[in-house]
Amino acid sequence: MAVDIRVRGYHLDIYQHVNNARYLEFLEESRWDFFDKTQLISTFESSNLAFVMVNLNINYRRPAFVNELVRVTAYFSKVGNKSLQLSQEIILLKENDCGELINDAVIVDAVGTFCLMDQCTEKTILIDGELRETLTDLIEDAPCQ
Amino acid sequence: MAVDIRVRGYHLDIYQHVNNARYLEFLEESRWDFFDKTQLISTFESSNLAFVMVNLNINYRRPAFVNELVRVTAYFSKVGNKSLQLSQEIILLKENDCGELINDAVIVDAVGTFCLMDQCTEKTILIDGELRETLTDLIEDAPCQ
Amino acid sequence: MAVDIRVRGYHLDIYQHVNNARYLEFLEESRWDFFDKTQLISTFESSNLAFVMVNLNINYRRPAFVNELVRVTAYFSKVGNKSLQLSQEIILLKENDCGELINDAVIVDAVGTFCLMDQCTEKTILIDGELRETLTDLIEDAPCQ
Amino acid sequence: MAVDIRVRGYHLDIYQHVNNARYLEFLEESRWDFFDKTQLISTFESSNLAFVMVNLNINYRRPAFVNELVRVTAYFSKVGNKSLQLSQEIILLKENDCGELINDAVIVDAVGTFCLMDQCTEKTILIDGELRETLTDLIEDAPCQ
Repeated sequence: MAVDIRVRGYHLDIYQHVNNARYLEFLEESRWDFFDKTQLISTFESSNLAFVMVNLNINYRRPAFVNELVRVTAYFSKVGNKSLQLSQEIILLKENDCGELINDAVIVDAVGTFCLMDQCTEKTILIDGELRETLTDLIEDAPCQ
Repeated sequence: MAVDIRVRGYHLDIYQHVNNARYLEFLEESRWDFFDKTQLISTFESSNLAFVMVNLNINYRRPAFVNELVRVTAYFSKVGNKSLQLSQEIILLKENDCGELINDAVIVDAVGTFCLMDQCTEKTILIDGELRETLTDLIEDAPCQ
Repeated sequence: MAVDIRVRGYHLDIYQHVNNARYLEFLEESRWDFFDKTQLISTFESSNLAFVMVNLNINYRRPAFVNELVRVTAYFSKVGNKSLQLSQEIILLKENDCGELINDAVIVDAVGTFCLMDQCTEKTILIDGELRETLTDLIEDAPCQ
Repeated sequence: MAVDIRVRGYHLDIYQHVNNARYLEFLEESRWDFFDKTQLISTFESSNLAFVMVNLNINYRRPAFVNELVRVTAYFSKVGNKSLQLSQEIILLKENDCGELINDAVIVDAVGTFCLMDQCTEKTILIDGELRETLTDLIEDAPCQ
């Protein structure tokens, strides 16, 4: 799953490319969109669970410049007992000769590790039972570029 | 009261000056600092009140550039029955020949109107009694430049 | 013209509604989209002009909460000799019984005053000739709610 | 070297702790402060070099809440031929019985890899000669907690 974002003037910093912190908002936007489309937002809300980042390993491979269109992907790559792994990419899109949007360069790739925190007890929960099944069913292989 | 902020690379946008939205974070930083020093944070917290902006009229008078040092002021200019007015300025600082920081140009001036919202009822409260006195005591005339 | 934005967890602040500064990014997103669709981005770029905010008068009428969908409009309301006025609104959308998105409440309305700055001379330009015609043609009356 | 930041209402997100993207601005603030105090800003500017992040590996160990005071450190941990490593921590501060600020918990630790990009050629430079010496002299061991 993915969201497309057009790079705007306010995303840039002194170096005239998208600022390193702003990409994390792009990644978060794509995660919320993913949770929205898979109904995970309501699953988490109804169980009063917060989806909390514990580690992010992010590669900035190519700068993104104003007016460029990027696609931000998000998919579960691993479901553990106490943590989850989400793999995400930000890919530059360009139009081919047929006017279709195709992937050009990888701008960012990132692996995020998250835990689910019970917002009452403020403790990390064990990911098991029905929730584990739901999440495991969403695991995907990396999409072909 | 005031906080000093050094303009950094991540505050800038495509035009290489501080982005218009970022100034509102500078203004908010100064308000929290003001509420902190005057103990208003605990006053608001203990009464479960949110300090909510209802109007902002902001003049962007001169761009701010990287490495510049700015002073962000905040003071109550009016206390009404249901709303408060805060006047704020962002002023460029420069060193004089004695190495002292003095005011140079006005970068931003702004008047914000706020109400106090009871976070349980989600309703705006009447500003009266002891709270009104506390707030009125904090009204200041505009500082001399 | 308008862009639709879904309110996400990272747009919120301590009060659990969209932060006052974040709305300015929503407004800016809508302006870039407007300039994009009307080819003004290339007009400004080819003349090396920066579109610079000099005043914003913004009313925050109703908080926006997570998962809400908002529509951010932008249109020129006035073209002067040295400045331009853009009127913008952020409107809460809801689905009617037919599954169509209709306007609900006004969250924010704002009038921004801008000038066009020549990025070489760093001086504000006079808005005349062909550019003035282009901009004047884009003036719109306020859309019906 | 370090900067101290008070956590404010606008740093928080839906979970009422500092948002994961915001920490990257805290880290960047500390880097600019470090480059400022060590005169690296002018070294980079005079050679027209951009300091560009290529990888960040960041652990979010403990949430930071409103009003907490955090210290953000930054030091070079490695200087390679084409890249540099900066190690950074965000540490919760508390007052001890003598009123002194002491380190409490680690909130974030992160290792960032950066390259230096010539802003004319848009190519990464080789880090050698005088620049390499300057940077190597700034390498520090991890500070004791």
